[in-house]
Amino acid sequence: MEPSQIDTTLEEIRVALEAGLIQDAIDALTKLHPVDRASAFSDLNDTDQAVILPQLDIPATADLLEELEDEEAAAVANGLPTELLADILDEMEPDEAADVLGDLSPSRVAEALAEMEEAADVIPLLAHPDETAGGLMTTSYIAVRPEMTASQTIDFLRQVDPDEETPYYIYVVDLNNRLVGIIGMRELILAAPEDEVYKFMYREVVSATTTDDQEEVARLMARYDLASMPVVDEQDVIQGVITHDDVLDVLEDEATEDIYRLANVPDPDLSIFSPVGLSVRKRLPWLYISTLTALFASWVISIFEDLFQQVAVLAVFQSVVAGMGGTTATQSLAMIVRAIALGEISVKEAWEPLLKQALTGLIQGIAVGTVAGLGVYLWQGNPYLGLILGLALIGNMVIAVIVGTLIPLLLKAFNLDPALASAVLVTAVTDSAGFALFLSLASLFLPYLN
Amino acid sequence: MEPSQIDTTLEEIRVALEAGLIQDAIDALTKLHPVDRASAFSDLNDTDQAVILPQLDIPATADLLEELEDEEAAAVANGLPTELLADILDEMEPDEAADVLGDLSPSRVAEALAEMEEAADVIPLLAHPDETAGGLMTTSYIAVRPEMTASQTIDFLRQVDPDEETPYYIYVVDLNNRLVGIIGMRELILAAPEDEVYKFMYREVVSATTTDDQEEVARLMARYDLASMPVVDEQDVIQGVITHDDVLDVLEDEATEDIYRLANVPDPDLSIFSPVGLSVRKRLPWLYISTLTALFASWVISIFEDLFQQVAVLAVFQSVVAGMGGTTATQSLAMIVRAIALGEISVKEAWEPLLKQALTGLIQGIAVGTVAGLGVYLWQGNPYLGLILGLALIGNMVIAVIVGTLIPLLLKAFNLDPALASAVLVTAVTDSAGFALFLSLASLFLPYLN
Repeated sequence: MEPSQIDTTLEEIRVALEAGLIQDAIDALTKLHPVDRASAFSDLNDTDQAVILPQLDIPATADLLEELEDEEAAAVANGLPTELLADILDEMEPDEAADVLGDLSPSRVAEALAEMEEAADVIPLLAHPDETAGGLMTTSYIAVRPEMTASQTIDFLRQVDPDEETPYYIYVVDLNNRLVGIIGMRELILAAPEDEVYKFMYREVVSATTTDDQEEVARLMARYDLASMPVVDEQDVIQGVITHDDVLDVLEDEATEDIYRLANVPDPDLSIFSPVGLSVRKRLPWLYISTLTALFASWVISIFEDLFQQVAVLAVFQSVVAGMGGTTATQSLAMIVRAIALGEISVKEAWEPLLKQALTGLIQGIAVGTVAGLGVYLWQGNPYLGLILGLALIGNMVIAVIVGTLIPLLLKAFNLDPALASAVLVTAVTDSAGFALFLSLASLFLPYLN
Repeated sequence: MEPSQIDTTLEEIRVALEAGLIQDAIDALTKLHPVDRASAFSDLNDTDQAVILPQLDIPATADLLEELEDEEAAAVANGLPTELLADILDEMEPDEAADVLGDLSPSRVAEALAEMEEAADVIPLLAHPDETAGGLMTTSYIAVRPEMTASQTIDFLRQVDPDEETPYYIYVVDLNNRLVGIIGMRELILAAPEDEVYKFMYREVVSATTTDDQEEVARLMARYDLASMPVVDEQDVIQGVITHDDVLDVLEDEATEDIYRLANVPDPDLSIFSPVGLSVRKRLPWLYISTLTALFASWVISIFEDLFQQVAVLAVFQSVVAGMGGTTATQSLAMIVRAIALGEISVKEAWEPLLKQALTGLIQGIAVGTVAGLGVYLWQGNPYLGLILGLALIGNMVIAVIVGTLIPLLLKAFNLDPALASAVLVTAVTDSAGFALFLSLASLFLPYLN
């Protein structure tokens, strides 16, 4: 649904609430898709939310908690009486219920679980850290034994009456609940009714372990186009299932994280809508680090301070060398960080791209250095000024592509996030090297610059 | 599979080929998953590829063409005799076959289509531009009529014998092939055998139109967690289906595009593995634009050139103001570009985040300006130098967050890509404003700086 249509509904709801027509407001809200409903609800102010929330029935509140952002869902859950919260959590998908519980206080979690009927589905999920396959999976899946026939399996499915969110695969487990195979609904339909499951199940199941990193699992599912992946423990006992929508969420978050880190925003949960205080608190440390590197570059310039009294024009062009180094380095940085994120490169195979980048940097340095040097010569009338600018540009652009490629690879080799700190480190190098190169060359050619 | 395991297989293949044991090489290759097989194949050199390719059977070659990158697939397809190519294309998924044909010459396409048995499935796909829903969809789906019973539908499925790649939904169409409903395999299994499809189909189908932009469709499917989405023409006649793996590809490409554009890499197909010539050709234009803006900033500095002869230390610190403006602006830029990409913000609602950013910039400017100003005062012993640095930092960091937020929104308002050119434009402003602010303040306080 277009944002504008949600806006129209929001307007309807506000008008209805102002006129005291609460039921009209509820009707307008519930005619939206649950995703849009959550989006509209979170756009309402606190007063309006407090009026609407108690009027929603249990399934509608469950839908709302499933679709709201984590923090907002926790706030809503915290405002509900324990008994009602337990009923709502029972109605939710186990993984979503676990997510909501994960954001509540331990005492509140204990109270809610004590009141819940389906606590047993949710408790195992609470044990797994958020960033693991275990934290991502749901326990709502269907498992059968290999000796069941196709028609018995279909009867079993009818009994279970799976809902829309249940994964499309049926998992086959032995007496110890160890995963031994998998069948699709399609194979089930196509099988002869009397065929046993083990005759038509796939035995080569790609599965994740509960402790696996969620990004690696998501990457794997994306690589092999898997719609869902079972999660097992160390003994191969099935624990849950990860579905394609989870993969999307993880990969989108990962992309956000990379974009943010390349831009020195350390927390992927930060957004332009975040409160100012939080925003400053998160961004400021990186700005201070950046200030330190800028002052370090200033110190490099200060070594050559006397030069400016003799040839003031050097102060005019020194930043071009530093800046162009930064721009070239950022190009290489973005490409290598993305290649690492998409699993296209390992540290061992890095030699070839590194050499290619160095060569690219050299050619680009010559291309930019020649044009900029010539331009500055024509502008300022001094060929030596053009020459040192050109040479400094060539040198700094080669340095730039090498550090831009190398720093993320080194961070990766030390198991650190290749996007984190890369931008700061790279800029520190290209700035300092740029100033040092340009001003050393200027010292060398000093007699010709006046 | 881990890259290292692919490497082991690659080694096996190379050893076998050197020993002339072609069948051993083929066996090693075909025991890999098709995705890994394509990855290993593309890592072989041209000679090895030429030895292996003719030995693969038709289904194996079809798998290979489906999984190779577009350009490589086209190169392989171009090397095959037409009749063989036609057989291989018949074996492929129609959307993948269309993608391969899309990269061949028109005469070669005509020849291949003339030889193909399933040309009718592929021809409609060739008509749609790559970036549209029509270009993304496959024609391999199952459609039934509403008056068929569940058991007739199951019999029909058995006849069709859908393969692994067929979407999990069955589409319900009227006599004119207009989409009227949708059923899942699950509903089909759960339905009573004599129930007609119209009794248990979903009627509220979310569908795309062939001409819809692929990113918008992918965003929609991601928002509503849809595993697949039917594509219809203007008359609601079903044309094809988009599946969850396509969505992933589109969103990953979109993320790459944004990361690249923020880093002034204009072409999302460029990678660290691209040939040096291509890399230079694509990156250089943006470097030249960047050079122009850097020289513009130099021109701003040149207005104050006389200052440096009097107070050389100004040349030492001027870049701090420009650089910190750039860093702050980049933080805001990344957050707004991501919010726009994820559909979290429309241009109309931009006032609140813009005000928040301005306030954030002011607080950060005061925080960084105070510390940096104080530090420079202690370092250089001149309180006025610290003061003008601090003031210039505050001013430039407020300007930075505002332009960092505003420029992408303006580009978006004019229907341009908000990530494109944003980085260049923002840096141009923060550099020039930084130098102008610092040096104007220096002129003002000149008597106190010596």
